[in-house]
Amino acid sequence: MDVKQEAIEKRLELKGFLQTGTKYELKDAHDLTVAYTPGVAEPCLHIKEDEDKSFDLTCRSNMVAVVSDGTRVLGLGDIGAAAAIPVMEGKSLLFKRFGNVDCIPLVIDTKDPDVLINTVKLVQKNFAGINLEDISSPKCYEIENRLKKELEIPVFHDDQHGTAIACLAGVKAALRFVKKDLSKVKIVVNGAGAAGANIARLLYLAGARNITLMVSSGVLNKDYKRLDSLQAELIKTLGQETKTGNLAEIAKGADVLLGVSAAGAFTKEILESLAEDAIVFAMANPVPEVMYEEAKAAGVRVMGTGRSDAPNQINNVNVFPGIFRGAIDVQAREINDEMKLAAAEALAALVTDEELAEDYVVANAFDKRVPLAVAKAVAETAIKTGVARKTEVPY
Amino acid sequence: MDVKQEAIEKRLELKGFLQTGTKYELKDAHDLTVAYTPGVAEPCLHIKEDEDKSFDLTCRSNMVAVVSDGTRVLGLGDIGAAAAIPVMEGKSLLFKRFGNVDCIPLVIDTKDPDVLINTVKLVQKNFAGINLEDISSPKCYEIENRLKKELEIPVFHDDQHGTAIACLAGVKAALRFVKKDLSKVKIVVNGAGAAGANIARLLYLAGARNITLMVSSGVLNKDYKRLDSLQAELIKTLGQETKTGNLAEIAKGADVLLGVSAAGAFTKEILESLAEDAIVFAMANPVPEVMYEEAKAAGVRVMGTGRSDAPNQINNVNVFPGIFRGAIDVQAREINDEMKLAAAEALAALVTDEELAEDYVVANAFDKRVPLAVAKAVAETAIKTGVARKTEVPY
Repeated sequence: MDVKQEAIEKRLELKGFLQTGTKYELKDAHDLTVAYTPGVAEPCLHIKEDEDKSFDLTCRSNMVAVVSDGTRVLGLGDIGAAAAIPVMEGKSLLFKRFGNVDCIPLVIDTKDPDVLINTVKLVQKNFAGINLEDISSPKCYEIENRLKKELEIPVFHDDQHGTAIACLAGVKAALRFVKKDLSKVKIVVNGAGAAGANIARLLYLAGARNITLMVSSGVLNKDYKRLDSLQAELIKTLGQETKTGNLAEIAKGADVLLGVSAAGAFTKEILESLAEDAIVFAMANPVPEVMYEEAKAAGVRVMGTGRSDAPNQINNVNVFPGIFRGAIDVQAREINDEMKLAAAEALAALVTDEELAEDYVVANAFDKRVPLAVAKAVAETAIKTGVARKTEVPY
Repeated sequence: MDVKQEAIEKRLELKGFLQTGTKYELKDAHDLTVAYTPGVAEPCLHIKEDEDKSFDLTCRSNMVAVVSDGTRVLGLGDIGAAAAIPVMEGKSLLFKRFGNVDCIPLVIDTKDPDVLINTVKLVQKNFAGINLEDISSPKCYEIENRLKKELEIPVFHDDQHGTAIACLAGVKAALRFVKKDLSKVKIVVNGAGAAGANIARLLYLAGARNITLMVSSGVLNKDYKRLDSLQAELIKTLGQETKTGNLAEIAKGADVLLGVSAAGAFTKEILESLAEDAIVFAMANPVPEVMYEEAKAAGVRVMGTGRSDAPNQINNVNVFPGIFRGAIDVQAREINDEMKLAAAEALAALVTDEELAEDYVVANAFDKRVPLAVAKAVAETAIKTGVARKTEVPY
């Protein structure tokens, strides 16, 4: 059976994949008095006195909503709220499987950013965190920025930050392997959508200083017609407001070439023009900018893709379960840049100097150390930067 | 340990009681392709073509939201959204335990009925049904009525209808036991809040014709100062617009006396003035209008309360799990009066003529036949009345 058919038949058989469950068995009338009346009045009163107690006394403690308006689902585009549910449900399963985070899909039936923002605000008290997903750019920036300001719980747009953190972790480990310095290497990021722009931004925050962000027409500069707010900020930060050149010109001699663009974008000529010991992450999905074997044949030293059928999978599944695990374990109010950088560093550090190899710069998604290492770094950094309600990391 | 202390300590220990789980094990990379990319695109596209397919292909199929604004939580009053979560979480556990319905708390942080209604509309596509809970009267009527009209999924305000159905079921079985006819008996309902008013309404729909609805000052009539929309409708239907009298006067010779009022409201004198073979359900919580033993001593034949420590527990836990089980199994668009009446009839019929006794007119909440019997009746009636998307009951 092919995967499409299996994806439908399994869902029809099981009636969807996500369900709820109980941590407290209701075996008799006594259990009902504890879980429901009259016992339930007591936690209500505690929370009425101090609202933050809902993070300790209810399922809110471990509950995250995967929020989408269905305007940019996978490569399918604007398919609407109901049709987006399978992705949000799948993501919820990954949260549970890899981070033990209770998670529910929450599609919101609107295309208006203000309506979405207000709806999330009205329901935020059910959740310890909000993961934004598959919202079209550029409104995803406004939605994330406003929610980050206006909510008392962490907000994380995984499409922007998950891939950026996974990518930074891979770059850090790969540079350690080829013995180059992040602050000195020449980096080219091909693709300036939500993922590409945030990869460039996070690399800069991590200390990289020679980064060029490209769009399909060439260097992203002030003449780009639909410059969004993040891109406008980045061309200043990266000093490329008036810079020009196509990918073949700009990539010459680059140490790191990152693609969040389209299949086939990295030609043999471009790859052969890179610096010695070049690192290439071709992250277009499902078909990358260049296939693993071709890149290696063209002399690339460390090669990664988003795929699970080749080495060095650069995938946000290594990131978001641990990010939320750590953030909600210390009852963080937000996920700040320091927490993202700490997550990348923790992921990179998981691969020891002895283990580092061309084909092993990132740990496997099924490696149980991954979410725990990320969670620990995120939780510690949340406390250190003053955004946590708790003062101790429970691990 | 007393129940208050246990209610807090258990929740602290387990960090709340509700969690999510998966019906589809994610054991390897293949499972990820089915549950997430690339397989997940296929159900998205099916639902894009036909939105109703989300009821077959996603967790929406079995997912109900327990919605509240926290304005009338238990006897605690208006304690706000966050403080209401423990009740909504407890209710979600009961849904799962007794009806195998996946259910999540969804408190909405507003006191404005319009905002609540709009929020539920914006998130309805995640759910197969909406259970309204602990919303203050009279706005609960407007909220329920508008949502019933404006949503494509069933909406049920359990505080109104759950107790009414449980009560009607008990009355029907008890009348069968004392061999009296519902259409002829004299019925007095003491208390005209959401539960009392709906008990009177449902009894009328079931065929009762001699019903008087009382408030603490006497018969509910057109001079009552804060007459809400349902009460205004009922005093016409029941023919009591200009009727007067206090409870002691009206209850004289009554065959059925129902209380959803306050502890102690049913005195010895009132009880002794009832008809031969009288039926009394004293449903005030946690202390009923009269205790079981006192009522029996005063000559009441069939006595019931809301408590689990006395016979004949009249409790909505016998009702809502089966109501939603049946409604969502046939993908109903609403829960109509016919479905409510069928649920009450099915509950009443569970106790056979041979089993009927003074102390056994309702089945126990832990009796597994209860939700199934209710579900079957509700599902069949949904199909019969044309509100179901499915045409067959799966049991």
